Amino acid sequence: MKATVYVRLKTEVLDPQGRAVLGALGHLGVSGVKDVRIGKLIEIELDDSAGSEGDLEQKLSKMSDELLANPVIEDYEIQLGD
Amino acid sequence: MKATVYVRLKTEVLDPQGRAVLGALGHLGVSGVKDVRIGKLIEIELDDSAGSEGDLEQKLSKMSDELLANPVIEDYEIQLGD
Repeated sequence: MKATVYVRLKTEVLDPQGRAVLGALGHLGVSGVKDVRIGKLIEIELDDSAGSEGDLEQKLSKMSDELLANPVIEDYEIQLGD
Repeated sequence: MKATVYVRLKTEVLDPQGRAVLGALGHLGVSGVKDVRIGKLIEIELDDSAGSEGDLEQKLSKMSDELLANPVIEDYEIQLGD
């Protein structure tokens, strides 16, 4: 089974990497872009021993809180399945 | 309008960051995880001057090829809309 964790900076947190991309797009001559935010796309492959769907959600939340995201400045969203 | 670009390392490319997370999950006592791959989640906000949907797809492909992804080692997927 696959799970995807989307990690995004909280909206009130400045995103310097996104700002840099926004500036570079201007230099490339791309117009009409208002904002760019860059987050992480974490794709996890689980085997059958990982547990039932309920267990998985709990396990993935724990993983996200403790390792994948920084809860002080980032939010995460978990999606189970392909 | 919003667009999202998902950037993933090609499957044949080793992902050291994913490997590190996989190792750390083992130390945290999380079992049942077979593989972890880490990519980028790029969220772009466009204004009305960015053009029609056809133009946008073309523009986003150009942006991805030239700036957002490294086509040698990464694949990207563009999703238009919220």
